[in-house]
Amino acid sequence: MNTYTIASIAGDGIGKEVVPAAWRVLKTLERVQGDFELRVTDFPWSCDYYLEHGRMMPEDGLSQLEAFDAVFLGAVGNPSLVPDHISLWGLLINIRRGFEQQINVRPSRQFEGLTSPLANPNQFNLMVVRENSEGEYSEVGGRMYSGEDEIAIQNNVFSKKAVKAAMDYAFQMAEARKGHVTSATKSNGIVFSMPFWDEVFNEVKERYPEIGTKAEHIDALAAAFVTKPEKMDVVVGSNLFGDILTDIGAALMGSIGIAPAANININGKYPSMFEPVHGSAPDIEGQGLANPLGQLWTAQMMLEHLGENKAAQTLMNAIEHVIKDGIVTKDLGGNASTEEVVKAVEEYLTSEIENRY
Amino acid sequence: MNTYTIASIAGDGIGKEVVPAAWRVLKTLERVQGDFELRVTDFPWSCDYYLEHGRMMPEDGLSQLEAFDAVFLGAVGNPSLVPDHISLWGLLINIRRGFEQQINVRPSRQFEGLTSPLANPNQFNLMVVRENSEGEYSEVGGRMYSGEDEIAIQNNVFSKKAVKAAMDYAFQMAEARKGHVTSATKSNGIVFSMPFWDEVFNEVKERYPEIGTKAEHIDALAAAFVTKPEKMDVVVGSNLFGDILTDIGAALMGSIGIAPAANININGKYPSMFEPVHGSAPDIEGQGLANPLGQLWTAQMMLEHLGENKAAQTLMNAIEHVIKDGIVTKDLGGNASTEEVVKAVEEYLTSEIENRY
Ligand SMILES: CC(C)[C@H](C(=O)O)[C@@H](O)C(=O)O
Ligand SMILES: CC(C)[C@H](C(=O)O)[C@@H](O)C(=O)O
Repeated sequence: MNTYTIASIAGDGIGKEVVPAAWRVLKTLERVQGDFELRVTDFPWSCDYYLEHGRMMPEDGLSQLEAFDAVFLGAVGNPSLVPDHISLWGLLINIRRGFEQQINVRPSRQFEGLTSPLANPNQFNLMVVRENSEGEYSEVGGRMYSGEDEIAIQNNVFSKKAVKAAMDYAFQMAEARKGHVTSATKSNGIVFSMPFWDEVFNEVKERYPEIGTKAEHIDALAAAFVTKPEKMDVVVGSNLFGDILTDIGAALMGSIGIAPAANININGKYPSMFEPVHGSAPDIEGQGLANPLGQLWTAQMMLEHLGENKAAQTLMNAIEHVIKDGIVTKDLGGNASTEEVVKAVEEYLTSEIENRY
Repeated sequence: MNTYTIASIAGDGIGKEVVPAAWRVLKTLERVQGDFELRVTDFPWSCDYYLEHGRMMPEDGLSQLEAFDAVFLGAVGNPSLVPDHISLWGLLINIRRGFEQQINVRPSRQFEGLTSPLANPNQFNLMVVRENSEGEYSEVGGRMYSGEDEIAIQNNVFSKKAVKAAMDYAFQMAEARKGHVTSATKSNGIVFSMPFWDEVFNEVKERYPEIGTKAEHIDALAAAFVTKPEKMDVVVGSNLFGDILTDIGAALMGSIGIAPAANININGKYPSMFEPVHGSAPDIEGQGLANPLGQLWTAQMMLEHLGENKAAQTLMNAIEHVIKDGIVTKDLGGNASTEEVVKAVEEYLTSEIENRY
């Protein structure tokens, strides 16, 4: 029996609904599958925690998480309680950086049974690999002068190491997929960081001669996600560009509520973290309306990362099944509650095992 | 008779086709309308010019343009001849900055007869107001260390003056439209420049109490362009965010080939510049395939800016007419050549005048 320790942080808003929902499904999957076990420890870190303790997580929070095999996160942020830049940097980004999760991976694909906003989604199926540790999200910058003369300066910091790591990850992923990498650039407008990005891309691609490549400016690329997403295989982008492209990718699927993400530690020193793309949506919190599929697909990515490929595949089948059956929440055009979706997934998993024997 | 002097720069690639095409139409419109005149002077500044002179435009280029009432630009760039960051900064961005064209305005709307990539475009009709002089496109930055340790730093520079100017422009535009402004931010991830952007937005909006507002993070906003563009009225964004959103906006219309742009000098010291959103597409240059509608709609924006509202309206009607009739190029799903589209527009304009008398 393979055993894994998982740190579970439900966080804020609907995170508090979809994380427990995902755990119910994972526990069912465990039972059905019978060959792996996830040992969960819950951490209450959130905006509520902040209001009590003045921080989003304890000072030794990272060391509390360090020994786990993975971190399973819901959603962070509730601007009516804590300003976003405090809550997100104090928890989400703190873990991403503290645990050197240099890569953020987000899939986007068409599902049978989901209505894409696109007239012709053409079975698109793409992966975005996002540099997750630096770039446009830096803590280097400041302000000067005051009143009408005030200026703000923000430094974008790109290191060869981090850029290369993201690109290598993308190329290796493309080797196992359709063999193509698109690089999101903007070297025609952003004249220091982006030509550097292009240079590293040109250097890295030499090592993968069998992979097709294209460098595309972020403006044209964002448009191409809308007009021909089926042409993309793996897309590699900076922290900001990856962020933008993955929200578009999520929207193309039918709802941001379904999209998962993996924050990968590639040096093996710290756990990786799995979190859906959607936010905490405090406006619908506690109404049973939250779409649990993003958190479930996130769980699927975690299982794959842990090496539990069979469980991951079964869970993906379950997700596809309930979508095809139309048992989905309002954001996906259905009228099921969070509970009903979870039940349908559990039923599928249980019937799967019955069919097997 | 109102007379205007126009500096015309066809530039590179299909710019050399669509600019002359637009001039044919403008001259027909002039004749038909009978109450205004555009005096054109052509400037050959382009990548070809660079190969001969080592610069994209002469050293005194800006002063050569300064006395004109407007600059009418085609497209700049041909990376097989000159690297993009040289051609674009040497001409396009040089004029934008030299002439203090702080605002870039780009409309996006559904057209009867055009197939949007969206299943339900819902008659969307929005305007993006882009800060056009600073932000992420700065010449401040550099590199340090070498080999595997190399880093590149790019400064984003935001001044209260420029941000405020863009926002004021957006609010004033919203007053004449549906009364709503969306601000593109990313203050949850980009922690110096974007909170500053938000602060200025909150300050400016106080002066327009009758205008509805929303601040939305660029990732969610890019997704919202895809899922509900009809909810947008005026959107204000930084140089980069405006760039990305307007390419998405162009794609939503059916082709980037149709989208126009105005680079507005708001202090009245220098001419404004009008250029389509599409690039120079050197791959299809000289084949008569280029879509002239982007350049024509750009001409329409120029006429409006000059105060020739009647001519602008007639030209817009002509554009709508040929689109409805399906006389459009391949990128819009038709099979007309550049020449055939131009002819159809001219015929419409001529018949218009015949109907009038
Ligand atoms: C060519 C490039 C520098 C330019 C920009 O990003 O400003 C273009 O994309 C545009 O939007 O006009
Ligand atoms: C909340 C925000 C800081 C975050 C980001 O931009 O990284 C989110 O949009 C995401 O993509 O995970």
